[in-house]
Amino acid sequence: MRLTLVCLVKPVLHGYFRSSCSWRVRIAFSLKGIEYDQAAVNLIKDGGQQLTEQYKTLNPMQQVPAVEIDGITLSQSLAVIQYIDETRPGPCLLPADPKARAQVRMISDLIASGIQPLQNLYVLQKIGAEKVPWAQHFITRGFQALEPILKQTSGKYCVGDEISMADICLVPQVYNAERFKVDVSRYPTIKRLNETLLEIDAFQLSHPCRQPDTPADLRA
Amino acid sequence: MRLTLVCLVKPVLHGYFRSSCSWRVRIAFSLKGIEYDQAAVNLIKDGGQQLTEQYKTLNPMQQVPAVEIDGITLSQSLAVIQYIDETRPGPCLLPADPKARAQVRMISDLIASGIQPLQNLYVLQKIGAEKVPWAQHFITRGFQALEPILKQTSGKYCVGDEISMADICLVPQVYNAERFKVDVSRYPTIKRLNETLLEIDAFQLSHPCRQPDTPADLRA
Repeated sequence: MRLTLVCLVKPVLHGYFRSSCSWRVRIAFSLKGIEYDQAAVNLIKDGGQQLTEQYKTLNPMQQVPAVEIDGITLSQSLAVIQYIDETRPGPCLLPADPKARAQVRMISDLIASGIQPLQNLYVLQKIGAEKVPWAQHFITRGFQALEPILKQTSGKYCVGDEISMADICLVPQVYNAERFKVDVSRYPTIKRLNETLLEIDAFQLSHPCRQPDTPADLRA
Repeated sequence: MRLTLVCLVKPVLHGYFRSSCSWRVRIAFSLKGIEYDQAAVNLIKDGGQQLTEQYKTLNPMQQVPAVEIDGITLSQSLAVIQYIDETRPGPCLLPADPKARAQVRMISDLIASGIQPLQNLYVLQKIGAEKVPWAQHFITRGFQALEPILKQTSGKYCVGDEISMADICLVPQVYNAERFKVDVSRYPTIKRLNETLLEIDAFQLSHPCRQPDTPADLRA
């Protein structure tokens, strides 16, 4: 008799509805068709639930997301997305061609290292009164670089005609840009890609306006 | 007759001796035994050579590094490192096991997204007079998170006993920490790993004190 062990434990995403890095992971789970549980970490309530000792054991950086999966706990959204991609069936989130993979990672990192960290909640709290122009400055600077790159690499999506991790990073960053009143229409390729992607179920279902922890007045 | 085309064009690294992201790429080239040319981009001279229109075509983010390789130009150091790893022989810079790969990426991204962007030259120029305490704050915050993670994942190196992209990110970040007078001895695992790694040729040869563009007074 052969025993086949099937992992029945669903991954748990510790995240926040409005966090762009949490949204990236939700899109990836959704594209791959992976069921998961969500544990809400309210970044505002009680002075920030990410700052508790309990959460610190999940992610010592005290940021969202943290993902419990296959017996390990991972933080950093791009590490989570690539882990999911390498261990789960479903559409590939990175292309097979090494040059295209490199372009996907370059675009993803431009957003995940070059834009998002400079306009996240913790940094803006430290900036204080000048936080809106600060965020606008860094998003604008990033989009000015991203636009000519995407003009070269994009087809229907960010890199060619297949959805990839780059698309997963782009849409939540455009959402942040709009929150900070950055005029996205100045970046026609970014705007076009964002609109195309927002028509896809995986991007709609995972949207911040539609999560278990979305406050009633922000639901859509 | 069959023609085998061999690419004889060496990659070109556009970088700066003291840039931690350029150093990451130099370590990767060195570990893989890849010959490359360096084109110096002085981030200080002439108001910053990364700001020229000529350089902007290589990297629209106007940051170093940019790497010309195999007919494409890549920016974002982790995208470059993983491209090198996927297309060149030599020691693997990411482990084969998916969980270990995820941990390598998590640690790399904690540094590359969670620490470095907040203490890079451009951001510090924008912070102005308070730049040293700002940089110290974000490096300290990152190291406080990195230490317990590395305590769990490390063997001889950051993840187990093989050198990986995580090690490539760690050493240049410790160098930055020391430049900003952060007391690294408070993080015993980080300190131990850094010392071990700095004994390796690839880390020594690529060191900021030993590059073609290193000023004479900083050479060692």
